[in-house]
Order: sequence, then structure tokens, then C-alpha cells
Amino acid sequence: MNQFLGQHILSVKQFDIDAINQIFDVADKMQRYAKRQARTRVLEGAILGNLFFEPSTRTRVSFGTAFNLLGGSVRETTGLSSSALAKGESLYDTARVLSGYSDVIAMRHPEIGSVAEFAKGSRVPCINGGDGANEHPTQALLDLYTIKKELQFHGKSIDGLHIAMVGDLKYGRTVHSLAKLLCLYKNVRFTFISPPELGMPQEIMDMITNHGHQLNLQHSIEGQFDADICYQTRVQEERFPSKDEADKDRGKFRLNNAIYTQHFESKTVIMHPLPRDSRADANELDNDLNRNPNRAIFRQTDNGVLVRMALFALALGVENLMEEYETPVPWHYADK
Amino acid sequence: MNQFLGQHILSVKQFDIDAINQIFDVADKMQRYAKRQARTRVLEGAILGNLFFEPSTRTRVSFGTAFNLLGGSVRETTGLSSSALAKGESLYDTARVLSGYSDVIAMRHPEIGSVAEFAKGSRVPCINGGDGANEHPTQALLDLYTIKKELQFHGKSIDGLHIAMVGDLKYGRTVHSLAKLLCLYKNVRFTFISPPELGMPQEIMDMITNHGHQLNLQHSIEGQFDADICYQTRVQEERFPSKDEADKDRGKFRLNNAIYTQHFESKTVIMHPLPRDSRADANELDNDLNRNPNRAIFRQTDNGVLVRMALFALALGVENLMEEYETPVPWHYADK
Amino acid sequence: MNQFLGQHILSVKQFDIDAINQIFDVADKMQRYAKRQARTRVLEGAILGNLFFEPSTRTRVSFGTAFNLLGGSVRETTGLSSSALAKGESLYDTARVLSGYSDVIAMRHPEIGSVAEFAKGSRVPCINGGDGANEHPTQALLDLYTIKKELQFHGKSIDGLHIAMVGDLKYGRTVHSLAKLLCLYKNVRFTFISPPELGMPQEIMDMITNHGHQLNLQHSIEGQFDADICYQTRVQEERFPSKDEADKDRGKFRLNNAIYTQHFESKTVIMHPLPRDSRADANELDNDLNRNPNRAIFRQTDNGVLVRMALFALALGVENLMEEYETPVPWHYADK
Repeated sequence: MNQFLGQHILSVKQFDIDAINQIFDVADKMQRYAKRQARTRVLEGAILGNLFFEPSTRTRVSFGTAFNLLGGSVRETTGLSSSALAKGESLYDTARVLSGYSDVIAMRHPEIGSVAEFAKGSRVPCINGGDGANEHPTQALLDLYTIKKELQFHGKSIDGLHIAMVGDLKYGRTVHSLAKLLCLYKNVRFTFISPPELGMPQEIMDMITNHGHQLNLQHSIEGQFDADICYQTRVQEERFPSKDEADKDRGKFRLNNAIYTQHFESKTVIMHPLPRDSRADANELDNDLNRNPNRAIFRQTDNGVLVRMALFALALGVENLMEEYETPVPWHYADK
Repeated sequence: MNQFLGQHILSVKQFDIDAINQIFDVADKMQRYAKRQARTRVLEGAILGNLFFEPSTRTRVSFGTAFNLLGGSVRETTGLSSSALAKGESLYDTARVLSGYSDVIAMRHPEIGSVAEFAKGSRVPCINGGDGANEHPTQALLDLYTIKKELQFHGKSIDGLHIAMVGDLKYGRTVHSLAKLLCLYKNVRFTFISPPELGMPQEIMDMITNHGHQLNLQHSIEGQFDADICYQTRVQEERFPSKDEADKDRGKFRLNNAIYTQHFESKTVIMHPLPRDSRADANELDNDLNRNPNRAIFRQTDNGVLVRMALFALALGVENLMEEYETPVPWHYADK
Repeated sequence: MNQFLGQHILSVKQFDIDAINQIFDVADKMQRYAKRQARTRVLEGAILGNLFFEPSTRTRVSFGTAFNLLGGSVRETTGLSSSALAKGESLYDTARVLSGYSDVIAMRHPEIGSVAEFAKGSRVPCINGGDGANEHPTQALLDLYTIKKELQFHGKSIDGLHIAMVGDLKYGRTVHSLAKLLCLYKNVRFTFISPPELGMPQEIMDMITNHGHQLNLQHSIEGQFDADICYQTRVQEERFPSKDEADKDRGKFRLNNAIYTQHFESKTVIMHPLPRDSRADANELDNDLNRNPNRAIFRQTDNGVLVRMALFALALGVENLMEEYETPVPWHYADK
């Protein structure tokens, strides 16, 4: 019996190294189905309640796809206004009702703590798909899983990793969660590159040093970084007090081919939580890196499906039954 | 051949006792699948057109879940603006087109009579999921089914029932339909408790007395009620001519633990059509009754899935075939 | 190996007669499943990404239904605002991400060329479901397929066809695409009936004459037409410079029973891309033709499912495997 059986997945704080390894082992087994080397119908007849009270196309579709690939059906709800929550229904009531319609729930909601509150009323396992500025644990897991797979490809492991995190580290939910998870490993070096106003919160820096990891802070991409991973995030203009302040920092936290070549090693893996702004005046990750084989940003989103499949399989206790329900794939499927 | 085969389900007026018993017998058989004691794939390949031209999360998801649990697929449409109806397409045309895409249709629409009009153009059975202030027959059926099951638990039957209906009985569509269905039974006692302005319509009261049932009217929850069922509905502030009028009645039609204990018997089953307003100043059904085992409000919504499964099975003629298409459920499923 | 295997379907320009015949042969085989004479599960486990960044109920549901009837699952996205595109994500990025979640994509988007641009980033075949004023190839195919089947019923073939196209021929995307496809056949006669301001674009008229087809232009429905097909489109009021101008032409391009009887032969097939405006002051196709057996407008939408099933089957290479995955239909299904 796995430790996730029938459990909610609400926060990265729930995970220790054993838990993560278990999830990643199951995710590895899911590759086969995501690549359409076989199809499994183990969850045929099961229903995912995919509740996106806040819009998020990619996360919503990724959860739904993950469930479909295990054979299950998806009942979806999007938007807040169309729901009874808008008429004063409590999250407890909503959870009691909607959990009666499904076997497992994935939920995103704009309010901090809302998914945990919902989970209290739910009669089935709930997976947090993002609760405002608080947590988005499946994003953190898919980031960590990607780091593991990318390092594996280069013959390395997460222990001893050097990761640079660039951009808005104050409001970026994904970098907070990822940093917390990385603290579970050994001898990690963190380089944080951000405007002074948008630095990593002190409590996370404390956690890093308390775990004995190394920490370097910079306010621009300067010098040479022997980072294994460069995790880029967006610096949103509206975070700055004025347009002048924003202009002052413009381009300092951007990654393009020239900056990458000058400051990073040729093996440094490029990650980004997506979506990235690809408009001309954007400041995050340029398209001229699109052909760089170390750009892992779409391997990240692909991995998201594997990790979510793993969580569904574990929560519903079918992590060892997928093969039993396998059939061959009859349609043409180009290797993606 | 059952009487619902290929038929529309538009109004509670269609049902007599035999019809209701047939639906409820099939609903009883659905419990097995709703509880995941087995899965059935009898409708695999069938398509439900789930057309919610007016938002309603719980009813929409309940219909979709019911169809999924029988093995079918769901194609969903929500909102009015995004549909061709907004460009002047007639309901007849919409029905001709969309019925070509599905095996059965569940439809909600804000206008009275719209679902019946749609059904005229449809080439497949349509189930009314609510047409404005008019009808919501599956809600009435699930309410009646819940009453039957709750009474059964207490060793009673619907004949001889005493039901109290509390709150806005003038605009409450659900209490009208439920009262009509209860008229089909024997020796029912109705106690209607509402503000004078929001009383049960005269035609329904006439129907009750014409059928020889007993009727008591009250304007507040006072005295002792030996009711088997207390069916609570919301009194919406905007129904009153002024805030002063609303304030005058505030609390008179609310049910909480103190009021329940004082005025009702300890076995009285508490029902509510949901959603209920759980905000502090709401006036319907307090959370302090949440632990009361007679609070049946979430059993109601669970029963909604069974009743809708039964209607789909009857309309498509598979009410005796579910077991033939059964397979075991491989995933972990806690008893809800 | 069919020529559509793994290919995008973006424009009618991709098709020659052989391609069309191949699609239509597969569409013919789909009738069996659309009529529920059997169900096939050949695409069970495959996922359609149904991306409707512009609303269109009938096209969206038709694609989804087509995929469901082959056994596949559908993950759907509707609306532009709720997507990352609104945050500056490029179509390339959106395509890379979402194509990782599906086996094939159907996409509608308000901007000309957007689907082709999306397809460049996609790792799976994309089918254009309409890109603004540009193309809507599956509508053109379903129109052509309908013409073929209707003529077949009357013992005729597309070669030698006489088609009248009536209404707004300038902005009507469907008539442009259909005219282009008809140019691939032999000896077609085109009669274009439109206000002078809303005539067929010169390049399409040139194409018709260059292919040696006959072309007649008229500015109102007058005289006798021995047309096999009358393809009616809407004349939208807002296309005219003023209400006066619109009033001047009112009724000239409308088809009702009196006009049909007076100007067309009794076998002339009536087509319309739908939706039609059925309001009293509308000017397109009156309900008094609803009982005319030559009114093929709903056979058109039914055929849309067949054509889309065929395209999915061809793109995924299962066009000869459907029967292998057949099972009997257990539910009651009235012949639509």
C-alpha cells in the first residue's frame, strides 16, 4: 500500500525523498503510455472532477490528459462566476457535492488555502492545481522531475546540483516550491539572480542555509555561471513601482542566445515554468534559443503529464496495475 | 419495452406512480455503479449532448457523471452567448443540428418552455435540466427518491408522509414540482411555512386538497411539528419589496440546531435543494446541523446521479443490460 | 499508407480529386457508426485537443462527436481570454505545449493564418476548424460531400453540376472554398446571385473560367433556374453602407417556399452553411421550406460528422481498422 492511497496532495511540504522517489518511479512507468507505445485502460469508468475556478489552459488540459491516458473520464468546470460559490455556497458544501460525482479531484482556485479547505469537505482525494500565490505542488514536482531527467541525461544526479534561478524570485510561486523540494537533496548550490526588490523571500533563503546548501545572490546576469540548470522566470512590469524603475532593469534578467553563450556553460539546461511572453518587448526567454537542445521548457510540460498520471495512479492505488490493462495502440503515432 | 424508451422527459406531469416506481427501481440498481462496486460499459460509444445554456455546475456535472458511469461520452456546451442561438438561430434548428451529434440530450435554458420547444426539433430523447421558472423534473425526482429512501431507512413509506416545506414557496420551483409528485401518493400531510407574500401558489394548494391530502399553513416556524421531512428552501432578499420587509422576517424561516431541536422531532429528515448560502447573514440552513445524521442534503445530490442514470438507461432501453457489461473496479475506492 | 497520414489539414488548396475521393470513401464507411449500426473503439485512448479560441458550438461539438464515435477522448479549450495567448504566449509555444497533450488537434481561431502558424509548432496533425475570414476546409468538404450524396440520390454526379449560390458571396467564406473545390470537377455551371456590392471575388471567378466552367451572374432571384443545388447564404445587414441600402435589397436574396416554387425546379436541393437566422425580419431561408424533402441543410451538418471522422481516421492511419474494433450497439437507437 502506497503512502498516497486515498490522500490529498496539497503542498510540497507533504513530500520527503522517499515520497518523491515513489512518484518519480511511477512517472517513469507512465512514459510508455504518454509515448503511445501502449495504451492502458486501468481507470476506465473512473471520473476526474477537473475544477478550474481560475483559468489555466495548460494545467487544466494536462490534468485531463493524464487522466484520459489512464482510461478515465473527465468532468470539467471552469470559471468562478458560473459556480454556486458565487451564490454564497461554502467550499465545504461544494466539495461534499462535487466529490460525490467523481473518484478524484484536481482543483485550481485563486484564493490561498482554498484547495485545502475544499479538501476537508471532499470524500475523494484532491490534488492542488494551484491556490493563488500559495502552492502549485504538481508544477514543483514536474520541475524537479525534469531536473532529474535532464541531469540523468548528462550523467549527473540532483545531489551536488548547481541551479541558477533568474528573474522575479519574490512573487514566483514555482521557484519557491522548487527551492523547498531541492532542500531535501544534498549539497545543492543556489544562485539567485533578481532585482533587489524581487529577491527570494528570507524564509526560503534561511531554509537553504539551514540545510547546509550554498547560496549566492546577484542582481544581474554577470560573470560566468557553471550552473547545471538555469531556471528563468518572468519579471512582470507591474511588480515595479514605476515604469522608470522597470526600464532601469530592462534586459538584465532576460535570457537570449548571446547572454546564454556568454554567461553559461554550453551544457546548462534552460527551464521556464511557461507561459513565456514572446512579444518583442518581453523580457524573459528569447526565441533564438528555440533550437538549443538544452532548452527543456517543453520537456517540462510533457513531464507534467507523467507526474500527474503518477499522482492519480498512486492516489487511486493502481500504480502496479497499468500493465494488466494494456492493449496495443492501433493508430499511427509519430515520436514526439 | 419500457414507457420511457425514446421519449423526452420534460415535466413532472408525465409521471404516474407506475412510471415513478419504474424509474426508482432502475435507480436502485445504479447504486452499485455509483458506489463503484462494479463498473458498467453498456453505453460505451454513446454520446450525451449536455447543453447548459444557463450555468448550473452541479446539475451539469451530475448529468455528465451519470452518463460517464454508464460508459458513455459527454459533449458539453455552456452559456448562451457562445451559441448560434445568439445569432437568431431557432431552437428548432439548434435541436435538429445538435441532436445529430448525440444519442440523448440533457438541456438547461433560462426561458420557460424552451426545452419542450427544443425537443420538437430533436431527433433524440431530451431531458429537461431546468427551463427557467418552469420545470426541473430530475430535481423533483431526486427529491422524491431521497424521501423514499430516507423513509425506508426509518421503516416508513411515502403514503402517510408528513412533510414541512419552509421558506420561499412562491418562487421555489423545486417545492412546486415535489408537491405535485407527492399528490400521486396517499394521505400526505403538507405543512407550508412561509412569509405571507411568498406562499405556495393557490393552484398547487387546490391540487393537494382535491387529491384529499391535508394542508396546514403557517407564517413562521412555531410550535411542534411531527414532520417526517423538513424541506428547507432559501428566502431571497430580493423577493421582498424592501429591506425593511426582509428584516422583519429575518430568521423566521431559518433552520439551525436550536430551532430544529425545539420545533422538530429528532428523526425529522432535513432536505434542501442546494446550493445553500453559508455566509454569516444567510437565512436558510446553518452549518451547526452538519453533523446531524438526519441532514440528507448531500444524500440528495448523490441520489441525483442515480436518478439521472436511471432516466438515461430507460430512454435508451438499457435498463436490463447494465450487468451484462460489468467489469470489476480495479482502483481503490473509499466508501463515500 | 494514405497521403493524409500525420499531415495537417489547413486549406482546401491541399486537395485534388484523388484526395477528395479518398476522404469521401472513408466518410461513407463512417455512416455505419454515425447511424449506430455498430460502434467502433479503434481510437480508444487517443486524445483530441479541441481548441476553439473562437466560439462555434456546432463545429466544436461536431469535431468532438466525430472523435468520440471513433472511441477517442476529447480535451477541450474554448475562448481566447482564458488562454495563455492572452498573456503574450506565441502560437508556436502554445502549439508545442498543447500538442504534447494530444494525438490530433482541431483548432478554430479568429485570426487569418493562425492555424497554419500553430501547426508549425505542433507535434501532431492539426485540422483547421476555421481561421477567421480565411479558410474552413472541413465545412467545404462537408458541403461537397453533401452535394455528392444528394446528386447520387437523384442519379447524378458532380461533373455537369449546376449550382446557384445566393446571398453574400463576397464575405461568405464557405462559398469561396466550395467554389474552389468544385473547380476540380468537370463542366460545372455556377450561377451567382448577389447584391452588386457583395459579389464573388474576381480571383474565384477567374479560377472558374480558367478551368473552363460556366459562370452566370445575377443581382436578384429572377427567371427560371435549372440548378441542381441552391446554396443559400446570409446577407448580413452590417455589410451594407446604410440601413437604406440594406432595405433596398431586402427580400431579393431570400428563399422561401413561394420563391423556390416559382424560380427553381422541384428537385433543386437547398443548402445553407448554418446557422440561419429564423427571426421574422431575417432574409435567408424561411421555415416554410422545412418540410421540403430537398432541404438538405441538416443532412449537411450530419455529414460534417462523417467527414471529420474520415479526416481523423486518415490523419491517424486507422481508416482500414475501424471494423476490427467493432462491437454491437446495445442501446435503442431510432433511425435519425
